[in-house]
Amino acid sequence: MRIGIVGVGAIGGFYGVKLALSGADVHFLLRSDYDSVCKNGLEIREPENRSFRINPNAYREASEIGHCDLILIALKTTANSVMCDLAAPLVGPDSVVLTLQNGMGNTEILAGCFGGDRVLTGQCFVTLNRIAPGVIENYSPGKITVGSMVEGEARDRMPAIVDVFNRAGVPCSIADHLDDLLWKKLLWNVPFNGLAVAAGGIPTDRILASPALLAETRALMEEIRIGAAAFGVEIPARMIDRQIDATFPMGAYRPSTLIDFLEGRPMEVEAIWGEPLRRARSRGILMPRLSLLYALLSSL
Amino acid sequence: MRIGIVGVGAIGGFYGVKLALSGADVHFLLRSDYDSVCKNGLEIREPENRSFRINPNAYREASEIGHCDLILIALKTTANSVMCDLAAPLVGPDSVVLTLQNGMGNTEILAGCFGGDRVLTGQCFVTLNRIAPGVIENYSPGKITVGSMVEGEARDRMPAIVDVFNRAGVPCSIADHLDDLLWKKLLWNVPFNGLAVAAGGIPTDRILASPALLAETRALMEEIRIGAAAFGVEIPARMIDRQIDATFPMGAYRPSTLIDFLEGRPMEVEAIWGEPLRRARSRGILMPRLSLLYALLSSL
Repeated sequence: MRIGIVGVGAIGGFYGVKLALSGADVHFLLRSDYDSVCKNGLEIREPENRSFRINPNAYREASEIGHCDLILIALKTTANSVMCDLAAPLVGPDSVVLTLQNGMGNTEILAGCFGGDRVLTGQCFVTLNRIAPGVIENYSPGKITVGSMVEGEARDRMPAIVDVFNRAGVPCSIADHLDDLLWKKLLWNVPFNGLAVAAGGIPTDRILASPALLAETRALMEEIRIGAAAFGVEIPARMIDRQIDATFPMGAYRPSTLIDFLEGRPMEVEAIWGEPLRRARSRGILMPRLSLLYALLSSL
Repeated sequence: MRIGIVGVGAIGGFYGVKLALSGADVHFLLRSDYDSVCKNGLEIREPENRSFRINPNAYREASEIGHCDLILIALKTTANSVMCDLAAPLVGPDSVVLTLQNGMGNTEILAGCFGGDRVLTGQCFVTLNRIAPGVIENYSPGKITVGSMVEGEARDRMPAIVDVFNRAGVPCSIADHLDDLLWKKLLWNVPFNGLAVAAGGIPTDRILASPALLAETRALMEEIRIGAAAFGVEIPARMIDRQIDATFPMGAYRPSTLIDFLEGRPMEVEAIWGEPLRRARSRGILMPRLSLLYALLSSL
């Protein structure tokens, strides 16, 4: 299986290296980090001083890569306006495109370009920081859950794709229901990524340490739960407790949006806050806290 | 009428100068600006190059002032923990204490120290900026509305106090209902002071220019309207439109909390956001946007 990676930040670099180390045929399309990665390679650092480095098949132009069987989209959603043009040269008649991006709305853009039957949606449950060009720190296993919007080629090939990830040591499974996948991921991202920025640029431990912010975290999760229900996604109340409990051991973790904010990069405001807000509104569900948070993040 | 002013920032300086210019016997208790005001006086600058300057009766110690008939409290509410100690030497057996501070909860603190029958609550509808120690810019007339919590000495003397302000060219009137006064003032302060800070430190024209922030402004006002109703205060819906309309001509106005934030001073979070939130909760009214805004401002 020939695999192309579009966007080699934390997500693209991490999964690309894992796949390459397992023997997969992986080709990396880089932009800003091209020179640095050609010189120094791609490196993953894990707890207990483990680290992995590869000299990847790196390209500056997608046309040099050509068609791939599987194309992983790991761009920031803030680059979604150029996503299809970047990926197009990799997409052949039998390709499957798998977005590993944050939030909602990415699948629809790719489906508009390449056809809904070719697109899969993956959600990554992983704790990563890109600490330098081509250098990614990883603190947790990095599970991927994959789903599809419609029947077709891509859905039929999900088991083979899941298998490729599992062989690379990345726990991967198929979601029964795509909406399920997206809403459950947002349950964490909406409050923690959002409050980390809006409360002044603080890591997750400081959100948890503030009774007022912790209460707002729960309340935002409750709004997501109600929004999800309007799409037939049942999020059990205990999942809110579980996600909060799981955040304590993460310590002073900086969610990706906080890093974007602190480093002056565009934040993924539409994918994480704007799109779920609009979807819920379209079904008559009001999310007052999410609405305010979205307006503030859009302005910051 | 011997008048003492406790706190000579924008509010205390402005009304103190107006009263002194009308011939009233005004005594100013200063803290940080004492030296500068002794040297340069107190100055108000108004549109069309009007300005007024006085050499005030300035004091560093309240005990040097002694008892006053009327004591205007114009401290930031962030100094409320020292307010009673500061004001006590001015309060004699016949004194009336009038708080001109922002938000809710100030009257109750003063009533606890000096007796509810001695305390009046004023709300100032005025656009001021203290641009340097003792120098205050004024962009609007500066109406004061005065109310009282309980029957007694202070309430009986309201007409005389209103008269003193009116003679000084400050439009002043008596509110029928104290809660009315407080909630209606918050209708503007909660959204504009709050969003100006939480949206990244922006003046009011940029709030109005963002459709998302303008919608949140209206939604926060709607929450205040519902909170007020639980206290018997009816805020007509058209007052929301009117307050928003009145904000456009203010241009790039920086609300006091924004100035506090930008200059690194404590913000009046409890008086403007915390106290109305707690009062509404005590009557079973939830204010989700105000709740989130309060948590964010508390953290900033």
